[in-house]
Amino acid sequence: MDLKQYLHEKALEIEKALKTYIPSLPAEAERLGEAMRYSLFAGGKRLRPILTLASAEVVGGNPQVAMPAACAIEFIHTYSLIHDDLPVMDDDDWRRGKPTSHKVFGEAQALLAGDALLTHAFTILAASYKLDSVKPEKVLKVVLEIASAAGPEGMVGGQSADIEQEGAIKAQAAPSVLKYIHTHKTGSLIMASVRAGAILGGATLKQLKLLTTYGKKLGLAFQICDDILDATGDPKLLGKPVKTDATHKKLTYVTVHGLQEAKNAARRLAFEAVESLTEFNELADPLRAIAHYAIQRRK
Amino acid sequence: MDLKQYLHEKALEIEKALKTYIPSLPAEAERLGEAMRYSLFAGGKRLRPILTLASAEVVGGNPQVAMPAACAIEFIHTYSLIHDDLPVMDDDDWRRGKPTSHKVFGEAQALLAGDALLTHAFTILAASYKLDSVKPEKVLKVVLEIASAAGPEGMVGGQSADIEQEGAIKAQAAPSVLKYIHTHKTGSLIMASVRAGAILGGATLKQLKLLTTYGKKLGLAFQICDDILDATGDPKLLGKPVKTDATHKKLTYVTVHGLQEAKNAARRLAFEAVESLTEFNELADPLRAIAHYAIQRRK
Repeated sequence: MDLKQYLHEKALEIEKALKTYIPSLPAEAERLGEAMRYSLFAGGKRLRPILTLASAEVVGGNPQVAMPAACAIEFIHTYSLIHDDLPVMDDDDWRRGKPTSHKVFGEAQALLAGDALLTHAFTILAASYKLDSVKPEKVLKVVLEIASAAGPEGMVGGQSADIEQEGAIKAQAAPSVLKYIHTHKTGSLIMASVRAGAILGGATLKQLKLLTTYGKKLGLAFQICDDILDATGDPKLLGKPVKTDATHKKLTYVTVHGLQEAKNAARRLAFEAVESLTEFNELADPLRAIAHYAIQRRK
Repeated sequence: MDLKQYLHEKALEIEKALKTYIPSLPAEAERLGEAMRYSLFAGGKRLRPILTLASAEVVGGNPQVAMPAACAIEFIHTYSLIHDDLPVMDDDDWRRGKPTSHKVFGEAQALLAGDALLTHAFTILAASYKLDSVKPEKVLKVVLEIASAAGPEGMVGGQSADIEQEGAIKAQAAPSVLKYIHTHKTGSLIMASVRAGAILGGATLKQLKLLTTYGKKLGLAFQICDDILDATGDPKLLGKPVKTDATHKKLTYVTVHGLQEAKNAARRLAFEAVESLTEFNELADPLRAIAHYAIQRRK
């Protein structure tokens, strides 16, 4: 399959849908709406929502049924980037070649744009399903899946550990803390993207289990590759400065295990992700290709 | 009825329930859990969750059925206070006589504690209902009610307008911008607290309409009273400095309409709130008493 073409087409579909989910706000909250749109349409890869659509498809579901959840997840991913970039967090001025939200809108509006995107994700989930075609129990299950993956037991927990440990971790404890950070900070939402699509697509318990393994491995491979790119990538391709992890004394796969082992681990995890799909037919080809892409990408 | 006793008993019940909804986090995210607990149990009045329970009761529902929603709303209210107090927002060091979250945990963890409380509210909503006793459609309706009241079309929209207008508003436009800020920043979540309880308690459409009017009037009365307290209140009773609105050139009911008209408006709105409850029996006495309390409170 032509992955590049597939990713491009899906990203276009998702962007079209994302636009329909932006609330229309009155003049008093115009600036907030602008800030929401700025970050939502700043050139993201749309990896998470693509995973949601592809996972619905792989179990024989109509990917359209997964679109509201896919968009809600992209809203949440976008919020997490805005808050992550704030001066009190990673203090990043650039992302994907554009000034970050707080550089354009100021810190207060950037903070609020993040809050708005996060909260609106749940409005999208609760408002967008026709409950005669998707059972409300299923929608609630997806709300739970996404909220717990994004909240303190998931992504925010990982971010908190990441901030707390910065520069302060003892070498001995590093591998286990790093594992917690990786599985939570990036892993949880990627896994939830896969699981939400699978649930909405009508996965059996067995299929859901296999796809959960896929999501888990993919999430880790993806994060390790991010760490590798920060250490070795091309800032022009990435659209942001590199080697910031070392400057901030961040705990990353590269700083803890070294570059070679990071490359090995990413390859191994991508291989295992593909392996977990053995029982699926060619409908799983996009997911297989995405696992390869996750470790070969240069941005 | 003895409102003081009622508020005290309900607050205790709510605090007991809130404790059960705090996620247990591993050592890596311990600091996040601490920050969440610190602000959740910093001596809030629990007005919003009490309104949720009381509204379920007034339509003949079991208030226990509204408890998860009541707690979710208090999580969201607490998040909004943490983010509001941050240096990039109102820059407040004190709240309810205690140092604010960022003074204790640092700005990064305070930001994340807010994010965590907001997100976890939806985990509570999606995980806490036994769907054989409360219909999943109803739970989804409450998710939508709360998310839209808290998000860009509600509270965050109001906060954004508040920040944007600070010191920059023309006298002519002030009353209408102020109205937007008040109805959204404080009003939306108070109205949602009432509506969520009513929906879960089994309100008829007519009852829901009457209680919506009550919530709308009460929210406005409450916010105007907040403005009055900032201008005239006792910092010792309030547990925070006063006259900060004037310092920040904030648009408030007092700065726009003057102190006397603010007092008149608060009284009028509380009266109208009580009036909207005429068709309810003595089960509505707590809601009636809360409307009086909203404008007589000194903190």
